[in-house]
Amino acid sequence: MPRSVAAHHQAVVELLTGVPANKGHLTLPLLEALGKVLAVDLYAPLSLPPFANSQMDGFAVRSADIPDGGAELRVAEPVPAGAAAPALKPGFAAPIMTGAMIPEGADAVVPIEKAIPNTFPDPAVKDAVVELPPAAPGTYIRERGSDIGKGTLALAAGTLMGPAQLGLMAALGLTTVDIRQPCRVLLVTTGDEVVEPGQDLTSGKIFDSNGTLLEASMRQAGLEVVRAGISDDRPAALLAVLRRHTGTGADRVDLIVTTGGVSKGAYEVVKQAMADQPVEFLPVAMQPGGPQGLGTFDGVPFLGFPGNPVSCLISFEMFLRPALTQVLGTPAPRPVLRARLSEPLTSPEGKHQVRRGTVESNGTVRMEGGAGSHLVHALARANSLVHVPGDVTELAEGDEVEVWML
Amino acid sequence: MPRSVAAHHQAVVELLTGVPANKGHLTLPLLEALGKVLAVDLYAPLSLPPFANSQMDGFAVRSADIPDGGAELRVAEPVPAGAAAPALKPGFAAPIMTGAMIPEGADAVVPIEKAIPNTFPDPAVKDAVVELPPAAPGTYIRERGSDIGKGTLALAAGTLMGPAQLGLMAALGLTTVDIRQPCRVLLVTTGDEVVEPGQDLTSGKIFDSNGTLLEASMRQAGLEVVRAGISDDRPAALLAVLRRHTGTGADRVDLIVTTGGVSKGAYEVVKQAMADQPVEFLPVAMQPGGPQGLGTFDGVPFLGFPGNPVSCLISFEMFLRPALTQVLGTPAPRPVLRARLSEPLTSPEGKHQVRRGTVESNGTVRMEGGAGSHLVHALARANSLVHVPGDVTELAEGDEVEVWML
Repeated sequence: MPRSVAAHHQAVVELLTGVPANKGHLTLPLLEALGKVLAVDLYAPLSLPPFANSQMDGFAVRSADIPDGGAELRVAEPVPAGAAAPALKPGFAAPIMTGAMIPEGADAVVPIEKAIPNTFPDPAVKDAVVELPPAAPGTYIRERGSDIGKGTLALAAGTLMGPAQLGLMAALGLTTVDIRQPCRVLLVTTGDEVVEPGQDLTSGKIFDSNGTLLEASMRQAGLEVVRAGISDDRPAALLAVLRRHTGTGADRVDLIVTTGGVSKGAYEVVKQAMADQPVEFLPVAMQPGGPQGLGTFDGVPFLGFPGNPVSCLISFEMFLRPALTQVLGTPAPRPVLRARLSEPLTSPEGKHQVRRGTVESNGTVRMEGGAGSHLVHALARANSLVHVPGDVTELAEGDEVEVWML
Repeated sequence: MPRSVAAHHQAVVELLTGVPANKGHLTLPLLEALGKVLAVDLYAPLSLPPFANSQMDGFAVRSADIPDGGAELRVAEPVPAGAAAPALKPGFAAPIMTGAMIPEGADAVVPIEKAIPNTFPDPAVKDAVVELPPAAPGTYIRERGSDIGKGTLALAAGTLMGPAQLGLMAALGLTTVDIRQPCRVLLVTTGDEVVEPGQDLTSGKIFDSNGTLLEASMRQAGLEVVRAGISDDRPAALLAVLRRHTGTGADRVDLIVTTGGVSKGAYEVVKQAMADQPVEFLPVAMQPGGPQGLGTFDGVPFLGFPGNPVSCLISFEMFLRPALTQVLGTPAPRPVLRARLSEPLTSPEGKHQVRRGTVESNGTVRMEGGAGSHLVHALARANSLVHVPGDVTELAEGDEVEVWML
């Protein structure tokens, strides 16, 4: 009985669980940490905002100076942006710009639009006055620490550092960030029939697309990829490649991913090379990407993906990518949405089918190519993966399906 | 009357329309083109698959050899993967693995599971036979060119190069790709109150988070960012910075983005510096991010964002990012979905409000922080932007809203 998609996903999560503990930290300038994962809890070294400031362009006032009917106040010196504000004397209103410090004594801001006149007086004019409506204490004031208080947790270890997280660190005055060293993965394509792009393509051969497809996917997911090129169908050759990266030296990787050689054919090089290792080869109830290998090779976590390009990509998206998110905190999960089918679909009973589709702006999704796992041109047109659960064999046009945006 | 969000978006698209024509091409190795945009139409230099091959592990047969009731056929030499297959003689069935070339004369594949016996015979055994059910011509054969035919359009100019697109290029045997040179943007933060992270924070000052927030966002969107640091509130200083990047030399940029100095305060440095330029400063019916500047500075497209960090980010996400997608083909658009509010919301009439939220796995979205545009810690917790259209002033818990995933 094939393993369920959920059970295999869980097995991949468990396989990777020990990886982060082996990884050190790196200190990087903020912008170099974009897309990487915070290694430590980060506490705010100062409060944000660092001082009470105005939310509007207007007049800083003492609220008690203005009765219900409004009041005419004398105009004080404007509060300069970026400097300590002088205290506000009773009976005065100080012109203040958005973000400028609230003067001592002031406890509210009246927006310029509500003032009469509703423009700021020329600073050269002496003894200017302004008529203002009343304002409750605190009106249009951003209190010190109202976004985050000094010493409180700003970002938790494991946070994925995007623009907003890096922007917060800058607002806190920080210039560097401690991130986790990326996970290193060895990627090996296998098969006598596979040749490197740019080489001669003789009869019966195909170019290796899996290496590029997976390396690009892994890079986007924050992994450091070690490419070992193409290994042919001799188990000894594959073993030699793997063993260069499983010793104790600098070439050691955290994870091995192979493509091909895991199915039921007569020449399954990955299966053969793993014969003495604690590696399981098993069918997962999924199409494409059914045959999967999982275990450890000389103690290094190992995943064996099938050989077709679409199967590879779907193995990555269904198992490795979500497990990385769960265990390492990066990459961000694929956005999940529901879309209406623009065409009917059939799916084999008992298998979770993952089709490639294009979600249109009207909320429908159409298929790109058929179910075939070799359709790499169709894959390149798709913007999403379309899920048909194992217990569903037929869907009509207009039926809703779950879609993962690529 | 403020300009609508849609009208301002359209104005930004028009502002950027001339930019791509000024940009040259770059030839890069495939993986370095990840996230960049294809500069030219790409036609397939070969067909995919390059030859008819088997979709299954099984036996290649001449379909005419097997009558309705099945037949016993002699087992031919196995088809070696990665080599030209010898022609199949009548009355024979050739063991064949997934992806191997269909031998001349064969026109169908019977999967190994349907064979009796259902395992491949030892190649050392002479005169082996196998009993096979009938198969219609074409069964389990992937025809040459069924994914894409030689000479047809594989990828159109303007395609964003992700893993699948690069994987397709590798499958076509290509090792380099012509991409568009990235658009260069000059990013200037303004304000007397703003200091660089890492400097001393004296009274009334704040650290510049806009620079980091926007540079990170722009890098993720595929722009090349030129940082000009912080310009204070003297228009002459800002003009000097801008003019270093608008000449005809190598420092020239394709776009200028400033933050701050576009509102109704008394010291609006960007407004003052643009006084002689064809630049409009106008309110957009949006909160936050209402005050916007748009035009050209010495002929270079210019956008003036407001000064609060959340306003900056929302200006980028609402106007610049979608316009880049439309005009340059990159970045990929934000996934749009609908989510149910986990709390009631109010919104000012006539303004499109953009709140920050976290979409949960159960399809609900909760707000991160209030409406205030200074809440950069709240922004760093959010995974999405929540849209409340201008004609909506109240929403109840459970109401559906449009959400853009960040």
